Amino acid sequence: MSKSPEDEHPLRALGWAAKDNSGVLSPFNFSRRDIGADDVGIKILYCGVCHSDLHSIKNDWGDALYPIVPGHEIVGKVTKVGTNVEKFKVGDHVGVGVIVGSCGNCETCKQDLENYCPQKILTYNTVDHDVTKTYGGYSDTVVVNKNFVLRFPDNMPLDAGAPLLCAGITVYSPMKYYGMTEPGKHLGVVGLGGLGHVAVKLGKAFGLKVTVISTSLSKEKEAVERLGADSFLVSRDPEKMKAAMGTMDYIIDTVSAVHLLGPLLGLLKMHGKLITVGLPNVPLELSIFPLVMGRKLIGGSAFGGIKETQEMLDFCAKHNVTADIELIKMEDINTAMERLVKADVRYRFVIDIGNSFA
Amino acid sequence: MSKSPEDEHPLRALGWAAKDNSGVLSPFNFSRRDIGADDVGIKILYCGVCHSDLHSIKNDWGDALYPIVPGHEIVGKVTKVGTNVEKFKVGDHVGVGVIVGSCGNCETCKQDLENYCPQKILTYNTVDHDVTKTYGGYSDTVVVNKNFVLRFPDNMPLDAGAPLLCAGITVYSPMKYYGMTEPGKHLGVVGLGGLGHVAVKLGKAFGLKVTVISTSLSKEKEAVERLGADSFLVSRDPEKMKAAMGTMDYIIDTVSAVHLLGPLLGLLKMHGKLITVGLPNVPLELSIFPLVMGRKLIGGSAFGGIKETQEMLDFCAKHNVTADIELIKMEDINTAMERLVKADVRYRFVIDIGNSFA
Repeated sequence: MSKSPEDEHPLRALGWAAKDNSGVLSPFNFSRRDIGADDVGIKILYCGVCHSDLHSIKNDWGDALYPIVPGHEIVGKVTKVGTNVEKFKVGDHVGVGVIVGSCGNCETCKQDLENYCPQKILTYNTVDHDVTKTYGGYSDTVVVNKNFVLRFPDNMPLDAGAPLLCAGITVYSPMKYYGMTEPGKHLGVVGLGGLGHVAVKLGKAFGLKVTVISTSLSKEKEAVERLGADSFLVSRDPEKMKAAMGTMDYIIDTVSAVHLLGPLLGLLKMHGKLITVGLPNVPLELSIFPLVMGRKLIGGSAFGGIKETQEMLDFCAKHNVTADIELIKMEDINTAMERLVKADVRYRFVIDIGNSFA
Repeated sequence: MSKSPEDEHPLRALGWAAKDNSGVLSPFNFSRRDIGADDVGIKILYCGVCHSDLHSIKNDWGDALYPIVPGHEIVGKVTKVGTNVEKFKVGDHVGVGVIVGSCGNCETCKQDLENYCPQKILTYNTVDHDVTKTYGGYSDTVVVNKNFVLRFPDNMPLDAGAPLLCAGITVYSPMKYYGMTEPGKHLGVVGLGGLGHVAVKLGKAFGLKVTVISTSLSKEKEAVERLGADSFLVSRDPEKMKAAMGTMDYIIDTVSAVHLLGPLLGLLKMHGKLITVGLPNVPLELSIFPLVMGRKLIGGSAFGGIKETQEMLDFCAKHNVTADIELIKMEDINTAMERLVKADVRYRFVIDIGNSFA
């Protein structure tokens, strides 16, 4: 990484980067590697704004490698393919999600679970195999190994489909892994943000009864009328919470803020499953009694492997599941980030990259 | 419960009871119901001393209904059967575990999971269907509904087999439910007490590699040589713990004392499972990161249903799994309880009831 970001690779690229932990994003000239034999060159059209992007640019997880070009919900059009690439051709619509590489040899890679590979290469803010740094989708182009490129379904809107590449797979994967897809079962979704609102839609697509669990009543109408939830539960209403105890088979908890697990475990039936996909940065309190007495479990899950992400995209295309988005221009990103801090978005910002880097 | 314990039922019984939260046990005259059409009358021969007995007589869980006759690892001989009982005959060796009744109609009962029935009748310290109180196995006889009586395998020692009725099923059931029986996989067992030492033996019977995780090195030799564990890990040795990180597929945590979950989660491989069967009485700290990043889960489990308990007994008989016990007389119980507090037993006290109430 001795050369400047602009000179280390042959292909010029333009993005927006955070240069320090103020997290303010501004235009940034860098470069992409040439299209190798196994690579796919992509002109980016849309990129979703994930809450992880916000954590990364502010160095909330302490691993920032500035400058950071965030973005891992990328949809674009293939502009060039390497000589070994048969699966994609110029003009195809494709997606790139949270990872662009992995070791390929470990136990998890062999099980198509590259997302858990200890050597996985994240789409941004990670040192790649060639020892240069990865830059994400808040940029005009990207070059990605063919094994980490997703085929974007024909009938799926490119903009509203983009968030599925992180938000979608992050809730889809645990629903499959933990067996939370049995039609007629009752799913609780905690937190109605980017992940939560997709979880509601996926739950309905799987034939579940879905209850949104939220701290305030303000989202009830749209949760039910717009997203299709069957019911709405205000977690700060002790009487309603009490009445709902023991009624849910599964809960997906998307909340990263510190919160109580006990009341959520209480909502579960015997043998119920509480799956957390948020990342609270301090330990939560866990009472063991409800786990033992009700044979309940708390599990986690982190996005998904490439094979399952493709499966998820195809499932969503079949069931008309996309994100509810607010389309913004690249130059509006700092305002969008401020609004994201306040959860003032219904439910995902997507950057209209194609029309921002004209 | 208006009549005295001695007069409320027609059959005279003698047991040892705790009268208050000193937990001191002393002889106690009470009575058992007559053998109904669906009942099995049992002369008790042996009864294991479970750690729950200690919690109950000291009212650690705040639910004591004194006087309490503890004991739910009961082995005895059938002395009389009701007119509807075909499965058992006089002279049969039978077992009675943690429960002697349930509602029979709920979702869990219908799945043979009476142990999770909200209306389950515990073998002692519980109000029974007839509104009298249940008294446990620290006594000469017991009358139990046929559906809650286990057939004791012919080749199983009556004394060393008794603890399987609680300790055995408590570790067997989660191993089956959570899929922890794949030969060659690596099981960690935390805490080498009554439950833990049976977990080691069951793990080996299932063909697992078993590592005992203990706070002190003192039990290493016997864990390996006597119980058959493959290795031993001292949880207070940071270097050894670090070296063992990411090596285990499953962990059974039998510890009820407050302890750290983080290091145990660290021992697990990706997708590993930490199952707790102990009951810490204050919440533990849980960091969500390892759950999410490693798709790990923490689950609980509470003993088992009657059908699975029979399956467990038959499995243990086939694989020569019994508890390592110290046989005591009834009059030694208070000393035994004092030793149990200090974990000074390898690994289960069993009361020689048959020779104590002569």
